[in-house]
Amino acid sequence: MKTVYSEAHRGHSGHGELVAGAIVPGFEKPERAEIIRARIDEVDLGPVVPPAAQTLATAHKLHDAAYLAFLPQVWALWRAEGRHGPAMPFAWPVPGLRRDVEPERIDARLGFHSFDGGASFVAGTWTAIRAAHDVALTAADLVADGAPAAFALGRPPGHHAGARFMGGYCYINNAALAAERLRERGAARVAVLDIDYHHGNGTQDIFYARDDVVFVSIHGDPKTEFPFFLGHADETGTGAGAGFTRNLPLPAGTGWEAWADALDAACDEVARHRPDALVVSLGVDTFAGDPISRFRLDSAHFPRIGRRLARLGLPTVFVMEGGYAVEAIGVNAVGVLAGFEE
Amino acid sequence: MKTVYSEAHRGHSGHGELVAGAIVPGFEKPERAEIIRARIDEVDLGPVVPPAAQTLATAHKLHDAAYLAFLPQVWALWRAEGRHGPAMPFAWPVPGLRRDVEPERIDARLGFHSFDGGASFVAGTWTAIRAAHDVALTAADLVADGAPAAFALGRPPGHHAGARFMGGYCYINNAALAAERLRERGAARVAVLDIDYHHGNGTQDIFYARDDVVFVSIHGDPKTEFPFFLGHADETGTGAGAGFTRNLPLPAGTGWEAWADALDAACDEVARHRPDALVVSLGVDTFAGDPISRFRLDSAHFPRIGRRLARLGLPTVFVMEGGYAVEAIGVNAVGVLAGFEE
Repeated sequence: MKTVYSEAHRGHSGHGELVAGAIVPGFEKPERAEIIRARIDEVDLGPVVPPAAQTLATAHKLHDAAYLAFLPQVWALWRAEGRHGPAMPFAWPVPGLRRDVEPERIDARLGFHSFDGGASFVAGTWTAIRAAHDVALTAADLVADGAPAAFALGRPPGHHAGARFMGGYCYINNAALAAERLRERGAARVAVLDIDYHHGNGTQDIFYARDDVVFVSIHGDPKTEFPFFLGHADETGTGAGAGFTRNLPLPAGTGWEAWADALDAACDEVARHRPDALVVSLGVDTFAGDPISRFRLDSAHFPRIGRRLARLGLPTVFVMEGGYAVEAIGVNAVGVLAGFEE
Repeated sequence: MKTVYSEAHRGHSGHGELVAGAIVPGFEKPERAEIIRARIDEVDLGPVVPPAAQTLATAHKLHDAAYLAFLPQVWALWRAEGRHGPAMPFAWPVPGLRRDVEPERIDARLGFHSFDGGASFVAGTWTAIRAAHDVALTAADLVADGAPAAFALGRPPGHHAGARFMGGYCYINNAALAAERLRERGAARVAVLDIDYHHGNGTQDIFYARDDVVFVSIHGDPKTEFPFFLGHADETGTGAGAGFTRNLPLPAGTGWEAWADALDAACDEVARHRPDALVVSLGVDTFAGDPISRFRLDSAHFPRIGRRLARLGLPTVFVMEGGYAVEAIGVNAVGVLAGFEE
């Protein structure tokens, strides 16, 4: 399959993230994409192509207009305050506080549009976000044009970005963009299957009331695993979307057998909705060696995931999400893709 | 007037806070209370007495039970994860995420019960919180017993602590405790007047639907000033509490003349409700030299504030809130109290 990739991700580097009472170097770093890129050549997965130029029109169907208008401004606003380090919020509008008045100060605006301290900005962040956006839409176009599959190798990832919030390394929801583009190009129904360790809270937020995009996710139980506040089994959609969201949370420590059973259940759920196309939020932080996740898959399991997904027989856009065991990320991510193509 | 004070605040020390993309030493530090304590003796304000033992029964009328049960456990839970630095959340349940399921992991529970990264815990934090709680209730009892005024010199402060959230250096709402204790002791209606630079979002949250406790606040406009997401002029109460909240936001840079006009308006609002007693949330971060606030009051203005408050002719409990220009905090805080007693 073709991979869509842009070097523009490299500028999103040197940012920090808030975790366990400290600001640490971002686990979501450029090496991740570079190692996957190298592995694609190593196994001769297929051509690597640049993204086509894209407008933000599709993003505007998924994200709040004020949110999208804010993202490109963040770094300049932060620098205007005389600050040099990564831009990050320090207060959030939790229930009981107001979300109907957007504040004016950069710190407050960052909090207003986020749910954590894990989506910080440096000078190159917006350029990388915009490139990942173009990458996802271009990969979806390849599939809409007839390719059986395509791989959107962008970063930052996207599945924690909701209609109005960033967080968890994510700003614009690339998988949601791919799904929406497939809809624009004629698919009556699209399924998003999220196999990242962390629940795709942003994707669920965006599609929760819709019946034309099914969301199915296998992930660490939010009672103990990030992003914590969404992804429980009793969340099944609302309004027209009732029945079109399916969460399969699994306890930390889950190994291949139980995870593979969940994948079977997830694939059955996808098939039951008879979608015309599939978007896979491809996280490989389910790997046993991942530094911030707690499932126990081995590298040998990832091709098996790809083979199982291929059995759905659907045109498929793979969108890169998480995976932080950098030394293994190429083998694991490309392992899924190669398994899919066998 | 008598001051109620406990040395137990001293253990809440060495904590950090998240601000402007960094974790910095807490501005809310032990020296604050110690310098005020010394100034009380210097000007012979009156006796300094220890708090009487108190149960959490009054706190349970103001704060959520799960929240109160969580606070004493934080440090042990954090240490159980092998961590030594200050305990702080890193994700928050903003709108779109769930607040009806309390997560199990300490990081998530901290976020579930807070709105920022400004209320961190160290080994002595709970002991200090509990002592500040006892201090506030004891001061209220002194006034209920007939003293014209008393000063609750506790820390951490409390006015950013809501029914279900901590933040902004605050954990249990000491001013709300004092107001509730005055109600318990026979006052039909109590007014809380908050003159801290920062809006008392926690106090407003607690009393917003009540008509027996009036909340009036003068503060930096939340569009640009912390805590950002509450404290606008159009917030006036809800249900039975409609008309019993009054916010007087002022722009950053406001000096004495405009601030004094707002104080007159605030006092008129208090008087209009004919309360039986007054609680003053006493922040002196309105001082021009404050490192994290932006009004421009001089030390000479603080006694004038005290004299204006005295003209209300109400039994008054002063509860210490903010003020971070440590070298001036004694002169400024005790200046208000001495002015009140003139």
